[in-house]
Amino acid sequence: MRNKYKNLNDFQKIINYKFKNVKLLSQALTHSSYANEHKMSKFENNERLEFLGDAVLEIVTSDFLFRKYTDMLEGELTKFRASIVCEPTLANFSNEIKLGEYIRLGKGEENSGGRFRASVLSDAVESLIGSIYLDGGLESARQFILTTLLNDVEKRKLFIDSKTHLQEIIQKTSEEPIEYIIVKEKGPDHNKLFMVEVRHEGKVIGYGRGRSKKSAEQDGAYDAIKNI
Amino acid sequence: MRNKYKNLNDFQKIINYKFKNVKLLSQALTHSSYANEHKMSKFENNERLEFLGDAVLEIVTSDFLFRKYTDMLEGELTKFRASIVCEPTLANFSNEIKLGEYIRLGKGEENSGGRFRASVLSDAVESLIGSIYLDGGLESARQFILTTLLNDVEKRKLFIDSKTHLQEIIQKTSEEPIEYIIVKEKGPDHNKLFMVEVRHEGKVIGYGRGRSKKSAEQDGAYDAIKNI
Repeated sequence: MRNKYKNLNDFQKIINYKFKNVKLLSQALTHSSYANEHKMSKFENNERLEFLGDAVLEIVTSDFLFRKYTDMLEGELTKFRASIVCEPTLANFSNEIKLGEYIRLGKGEENSGGRFRASVLSDAVESLIGSIYLDGGLESARQFILTTLLNDVEKRKLFIDSKTHLQEIIQKTSEEPIEYIIVKEKGPDHNKLFMVEVRHEGKVIGYGRGRSKKSAEQDGAYDAIKNI
Repeated sequence: MRNKYKNLNDFQKIINYKFKNVKLLSQALTHSSYANEHKMSKFENNERLEFLGDAVLEIVTSDFLFRKYTDMLEGELTKFRASIVCEPTLANFSNEIKLGEYIRLGKGEENSGGRFRASVLSDAVESLIGSIYLDGGLESARQFILTTLLNDVEKRKLFIDSKTHLQEIIQKTSEEPIEYIIVKEKGPDHNKLFMVEVRHEGKVIGYGRGRSKKSAEQDGAYDAIKNI
């Protein structure tokens, strides 16, 4: 069995936040399936923290976008915010802080690929934010969010919108469609990895990979945009 | 023409918050239809403030519920929060601070009953919260929300759920259905007022009134619960 306290120390270095009450962090990383399996109380899993973290993420992101993009109207701001606080973006972000490696899952959830599931990862990001908020207050949570998730917000927006964005770029000069071709699938059903080639006018203009076809395509489109 | 600055002073007394920058309040009360009609910039209506206020309301409500209801699981907390930050509750609340009287509307919107429209009122509540947040920070906004909207949160929850709640009470002792009967409709189409009698086993057990049949029924159910 791994030493969970060592793990939590490592993780606190990755997220660059040191908990006063490390039990909060431990709770943020406890999926309901683990709590159930270990006969823990329903109040010891990460779901209440997720409820709180969701709202913390919302206000920090809204405040940030409101002040940074003074030339954006409400509709654009709302879309921008939605592209950041949505499941794919948060799941994608969770990889950057290796969050999946630290989540405590029940065996059934583990065996069905829960550690790589976007919903599990995205929820855990919100729980983590909720736990930092409870431990250190709004400013600690804001600091964490600003220096990580919102650090390169244009890139994240681009990532989410990559297929649309690539389409807009391409159609300025060409009427040929963009093709996304799955060139490889790896791993068992519950833990697949897809590889995609993005082709245009017979040439490969980008490569992508992801846990779903959709996310591999976005990754490929993002790669293509960088190459153009 | 009414003196708008006198109005804003009155309004600040009602909400018990004095703005350092009263222009923010004025903007929070400016519906897009008014801004359009007066050839104001799109950045002078209340929509960006609404974007911000929505998130402020969310975090203040979430933090409040999380700490107050330590025995509620995430699912219940989420439902409770949704019942507070939803359009009917916010529109209902707007009446308590007479918000509708202070909103600046365009003529078309005015003539079609916009001053009494739940969406207009609910959006303006969020804009108002956004404007207090910008003017005085999170703690000022929290103070306003806690002393008004969240002051009697059980009552609000009850109000939203009154029909369900009444049904649960009644069916414990009786199989007779509850009837909601519209006994009167007043006013022009765009500004109707409905009056409802709540009947059970041939007796009137509550009276309600509201701008829609639905809200009059909820009001009637709430009245019945108080009478039981």
